[in-house]
Amino acid sequence: MTPGISFRIDATDGAARTGALSLPRGVVRTPAFMPVGTAGTVKAMTMDEVKATGADIILGNTYHLMLRPGAERIAALGGLHKFARWNGPILTDSGGFQVMSLAAIRKLDADGVTFQSHIDGSTHRLTPERSLEIQGLLDSDIRMQLDECVALPAERAALDKAMRLSLKWAERSKAAFGGTEGRALFGIVQGGDQPDLRLESARGLTAIGFDGYAVGGLAVGEPQATMLAMLDVTAPALPADAPRYLMGVGTPDDIVESVRRGIDMFDCVMPTRAGRHGVAYTRFGKLNLKNARHADDPRPLDEAAPWSAARDYSRAYLHHLVKSQEILGAMLLTQNNVAYYEALMAGVRAAIAEGRYADFVAETKAGWAAGDAAEPDAG
Amino acid sequence: MTPGISFRIDATDGAARTGALSLPRGVVRTPAFMPVGTAGTVKAMTMDEVKATGADIILGNTYHLMLRPGAERIAALGGLHKFARWNGPILTDSGGFQVMSLAAIRKLDADGVTFQSHIDGSTHRLTPERSLEIQGLLDSDIRMQLDECVALPAERAALDKAMRLSLKWAERSKAAFGGTEGRALFGIVQGGDQPDLRLESARGLTAIGFDGYAVGGLAVGEPQATMLAMLDVTAPALPADAPRYLMGVGTPDDIVESVRRGIDMFDCVMPTRAGRHGVAYTRFGKLNLKNARHADDPRPLDEAAPWSAARDYSRAYLHHLVKSQEILGAMLLTQNNVAYYEALMAGVRAAIAEGRYADFVAETKAGWAAGDAAEPDAG
Repeated sequence: MTPGISFRIDATDGAARTGALSLPRGVVRTPAFMPVGTAGTVKAMTMDEVKATGADIILGNTYHLMLRPGAERIAALGGLHKFARWNGPILTDSGGFQVMSLAAIRKLDADGVTFQSHIDGSTHRLTPERSLEIQGLLDSDIRMQLDECVALPAERAALDKAMRLSLKWAERSKAAFGGTEGRALFGIVQGGDQPDLRLESARGLTAIGFDGYAVGGLAVGEPQATMLAMLDVTAPALPADAPRYLMGVGTPDDIVESVRRGIDMFDCVMPTRAGRHGVAYTRFGKLNLKNARHADDPRPLDEAAPWSAARDYSRAYLHHLVKSQEILGAMLLTQNNVAYYEALMAGVRAAIAEGRYADFVAETKAGWAAGDAAEPDAG
Repeated sequence: MTPGISFRIDATDGAARTGALSLPRGVVRTPAFMPVGTAGTVKAMTMDEVKATGADIILGNTYHLMLRPGAERIAALGGLHKFARWNGPILTDSGGFQVMSLAAIRKLDADGVTFQSHIDGSTHRLTPERSLEIQGLLDSDIRMQLDECVALPAERAALDKAMRLSLKWAERSKAAFGGTEGRALFGIVQGGDQPDLRLESARGLTAIGFDGYAVGGLAVGEPQATMLAMLDVTAPALPADAPRYLMGVGTPDDIVESVRRGIDMFDCVMPTRAGRHGVAYTRFGKLNLKNARHADDPRPLDEAAPWSAARDYSRAYLHHLVKSQEILGAMLLTQNNVAYYEALMAGVRAAIAEGRYADFVAETKAGWAAGDAAEPDAG
């Protein structure tokens, strides 16, 4: 592992593990959920509010930041932490995934990818080396290799080719990274829904050697069962003493099932995006606040939650804010959702430490299934 | 004055006064600026954040609230204070101004106004009595009479007619209000830019007797000099021992000049609306954060300001948020602007109390005029 960082496992329960990834800018308690701070902001929240949810680390998107405001500009302003006012660890992705999903025109070759910005149409190029240069300019704490991620379903030949290209780029990324003290580099397992390709990718990355190992190319259109089957194959093939990060996942159910299979880190836009679209995550499952049934409901989202957004505002008020497209609606639901995800992770960590993870998952799922359809209290 | 409320003047400096309007839900230090909470939310802020700016009172819009979520619904949920989570005083307008400016179709008659909702086209009617009924359902602390407000420039005949109709509605409003203990009713002076009509309106309202007197029909298209000339005529004609409220005003300059003429209360959407459009109010005047000159500027809006939005974020970051249309940009600039307005009012109150109001206004205007065009500090 690169000097200045360390990963410790404090307890296991089956394949699930809890511990801590220590970085110079802070300790990440695992399993961890990383709120997505796409363009230098976790949308609709201040960083103080993000911190208050219990998040130890956030994610920044290289694609968005390289285009606007630009990596060199952020470096001149003192780096992403100072720019965005987040002093804990930040993980940056390589930019590759967003190039494929957002850029108007893109052309992949063996050396990298050329694309046009979705903002102004300007032409840019990402290679494994340039991606790491950008991540260095941002001065993120955990950096990701450039890879090729294929949406599912896909032909085996395409998955095979993308996995092999990603492995080659993994080697180039390791060389370009150079082992910057106190900064981590993660490789990314590809291979789609093909178990043998996943295994080959995991072994190839392990041979190169990384500070952590991500599983990419999942939650890209396949059923949950396929995703979990790939984790069953992949996680045991990765070094037990390094953190494992499932990229872009997912629903609360995806997370608890993936933790069960040995995953330590997650990121997903769901809690923030849902918050901007009127949806609240709660112990009782998802609530769509747009629904007219909330219009006269004086109950809060969850009176037992320790955070204000869930405890202090009536569903009737949240419904009104969402219907009126008030910014405060997005603010409060985003705060609630990120707080819910972080509280879920705290519960996950405690349950593993106490050796009752299976019970925790069963109870949590029962809560989601039970819902909260009770009539508003007469009081 | 209605039982349960009182108005006290602690000091005067020329025509300017400072004191306090005491209501059961809290004390409003005057001169006061009321942030506008149109639809039960001061846009892009939590009520805790509004309170932290030093605001003692907020404004709610009867027009918006009667259409969505509905006054009867808010009453069933426990009133506007509980609904919106603001436990200090709230002033509600009569709804008349927004009917004229927002409703798709409206028809005024001697008894009231019929209009179609700008939200769903449904037909509604406001009369002096229904407006006060709605304000009672909202349970606001200060209620306004329904009036007719005419945009300037206008024919004298139209101004004369609207002023007389407003006076008749003032009488009906007083009767409908009935003197609810601990709740205040304000009359509204009309008369456009005609000094004699303003005087007649002020005398007519004084004869009816209200807890406070608003000046309406200004900042509706006329030059600032016209507005101030109308205040020179109107303010001295109103009872010295009752609060005077200049509706919908205005710029920081409008406010300090109106205080100089004896105005005690203000409301305006400027600080909140500007905050959603990339504009910051500061001691150095207005800054448009959209401007490219801020892109590399590491300085905060105002390092000497005691509030976070002005002190803790670089202009480069704020520029980035505004350019990227990030909600956090609206949140931070709105917080800054409301905090700036409230800090300005605190300065106004202190200067009057210390008998140096003219100097305060001169220094404040010099700050706005000097601007802040200095190059970013090399440090």
